[in-house]
Amino acid sequence: MDIDNINSTYFENYEDLEIHKLMLKDSTRNNAYQKAILNNKNNILNKVVLDVGAGTGILSILCAQAGARKVYAVEASETYKIAKEIVKENGFENVIEVIHSRIEDLTDSEIPEKVDVIVSEWMGFYLLHEGMLDSVITARDRFLKSDGLIFPESAAIYASPCSIPSMYNDWNDISGVSMQSFAKLLRNEALKKPLTESLSPNDLLSEPEVVSWIDLREVTIEDLKEFSFQHVAVSTKTALYQGVCLWFTCTFPFSGFDEPVVLSTAPDEPGTHWKQTLIVLPESIKVEPGSPICYDLVMRRSESNSRRYIIEIAMLDPDEVEHPEFCSCFMTKCILVKAVLKKYEKGVDVPMK
Amino acid sequence: MDIDNINSTYFENYEDLEIHKLMLKDSTRNNAYQKAILNNKNNILNKVVLDVGAGTGILSILCAQAGARKVYAVEASETYKIAKEIVKENGFENVIEVIHSRIEDLTDSEIPEKVDVIVSEWMGFYLLHEGMLDSVITARDRFLKSDGLIFPESAAIYASPCSIPSMYNDWNDISGVSMQSFAKLLRNEALKKPLTESLSPNDLLSEPEVVSWIDLREVTIEDLKEFSFQHVAVSTKTALYQGVCLWFTCTFPFSGFDEPVVLSTAPDEPGTHWKQTLIVLPESIKVEPGSPICYDLVMRRSESNSRRYIIEIAMLDPDEVEHPEFCSCFMTKCILVKAVLKKYEKGVDVPMK
Repeated sequence: MDIDNINSTYFENYEDLEIHKLMLKDSTRNNAYQKAILNNKNNILNKVVLDVGAGTGILSILCAQAGARKVYAVEASETYKIAKEIVKENGFENVIEVIHSRIEDLTDSEIPEKVDVIVSEWMGFYLLHEGMLDSVITARDRFLKSDGLIFPESAAIYASPCSIPSMYNDWNDISGVSMQSFAKLLRNEALKKPLTESLSPNDLLSEPEVVSWIDLREVTIEDLKEFSFQHVAVSTKTALYQGVCLWFTCTFPFSGFDEPVVLSTAPDEPGTHWKQTLIVLPESIKVEPGSPICYDLVMRRSESNSRRYIIEIAMLDPDEVEHPEFCSCFMTKCILVKAVLKKYEKGVDVPMK
Repeated sequence: MDIDNINSTYFENYEDLEIHKLMLKDSTRNNAYQKAILNNKNNILNKVVLDVGAGTGILSILCAQAGARKVYAVEASETYKIAKEIVKENGFENVIEVIHSRIEDLTDSEIPEKVDVIVSEWMGFYLLHEGMLDSVITARDRFLKSDGLIFPESAAIYASPCSIPSMYNDWNDISGVSMQSFAKLLRNEALKKPLTESLSPNDLLSEPEVVSWIDLREVTIEDLKEFSFQHVAVSTKTALYQGVCLWFTCTFPFSGFDEPVVLSTAPDEPGTHWKQTLIVLPESIKVEPGSPICYDLVMRRSESNSRRYIIEIAMLDPDEVEHPEFCSCFMTKCILVKAVLKKYEKGVDVPMK
């Protein structure tokens, strides 16, 4: 193979090359796709696959290794050139056809058939940022057979209130020097743009909750406009509540043989290039075991740039928010309700007004 | 302290804030300065200190903690504002005077005396990149007493030939996919600009050599124009020679009580934000124990931008290079010379032509 004439014009720019390097070095990501695809050999062997946003072509090659009869690797950027080289390097130029196009612009002559499988790695920070789920939806509606599979098949966004030492406590003692004024600057910046940072699982304050669950077989572009989530979390520890941690998981189709593969970016899982997304509060709030932590989280697609979301978080007063029926927080109303429910469970008659 | 009105105008831009965050999170760096300064209490107590490029003010505060009578913290960028806040936060506004100025523009009324100590953290990648050693030299010549101390007092640049898996072997198997075409792109970029990357000490191929040693008490700006270094390294293992690894150490004044503190950015030391600097070869070269690895390394100050250096490396033919007298490589000429020297040591007369 002649790779001597490869140069950086294979990418739109140097940053693009660096982003692909970062993704390809993310072995948690790569291994999840590899396992999900190879576990599903029975669903891929001799089948037709469409790779949406193929990038360097790695997912197309994994599908070819799983025995796909034909793979359409569609990539809109200049990266399609390196995908072609990598397909050759792996000996799959007879199986994988690299197509330089946006999904939306594909012609019927470019993909003249319905496909059995769609693969795509479309996930961005906090799942949706700079994501290209729209393209996957478009590809699904136009090209996927009605019984076709999508890799991944579903995705979930999780949230949990948390401490964020990197924005607060770490700055009490920098080799003996107090630097909270500097931390304040960092927090001011973080108010404009959430952090992409790895959090220790010990810094989560409560059980995680699912903010949103997306079924890729059914979701519409309209559904992606806004996600809204109100939550009464209950602190499990004495700690400082300093922000909300977001992460996501993606679940791949069940092969029938093994557990479905889940790619998780949770704080207690091996690190990925997505890390976690941290929304930082301007001030720390002290919480104890049983403290209710109430907030409203809205992720709304930016009108000026559909690849971005505006994330808004509002702290809510626990007194003014309806708590869930089985809330375990220490507020009198929840303790009373719990006591009532307990008696009710035991079959004791409770006079209800 | 009122820190609510602090905002990012305290820095020239957002990147500047991120760079300071990176430096302040580098505990290896901070702890070395802290230890060196506190060990030297005897040399700092009641003395006058000049902090060259004070940044956020951390070194000035460490000197105040060590008992300095007066610290001039000179900072040319907008960062001087946050330095003022941090000085206040640590209660040293009566000791530390933050001066917003370039070193070169200081007036006699701003610093009306000679100083006993200069502290500065001026080091860049591979020591010299974007460094501000010129300012330290200027400050030394103008303000330091003849018996004054400089923290750090000396610096050394080291080099060793190395393997670079991140540019070569790592790409043989990305979750079962061969991606050497991509690695080739990365290497092409690395030919333009050395990598800043952490190398495993196992990837060094020979004993490190000192490229250059700088005595901060004597070095001149003229001396910094060019560093040139020819080296015959001898491989200690069977490996692939894929580049040259550069790093540096800084040594602080000897307090008389303890070992002098050394801040090292070597691959076998705890990581720093400087990592190592890797010059990547376009092709791998196989070496064995005893293989001579000959190269010429030149670091020349850029004429268009004095804060940058052009690094040139030339592979030399071991046959055409003079090897050191006690070279341990496996070439016949060196084995013969070694045998001769060995006999000579034993007092055997050897006929010399």
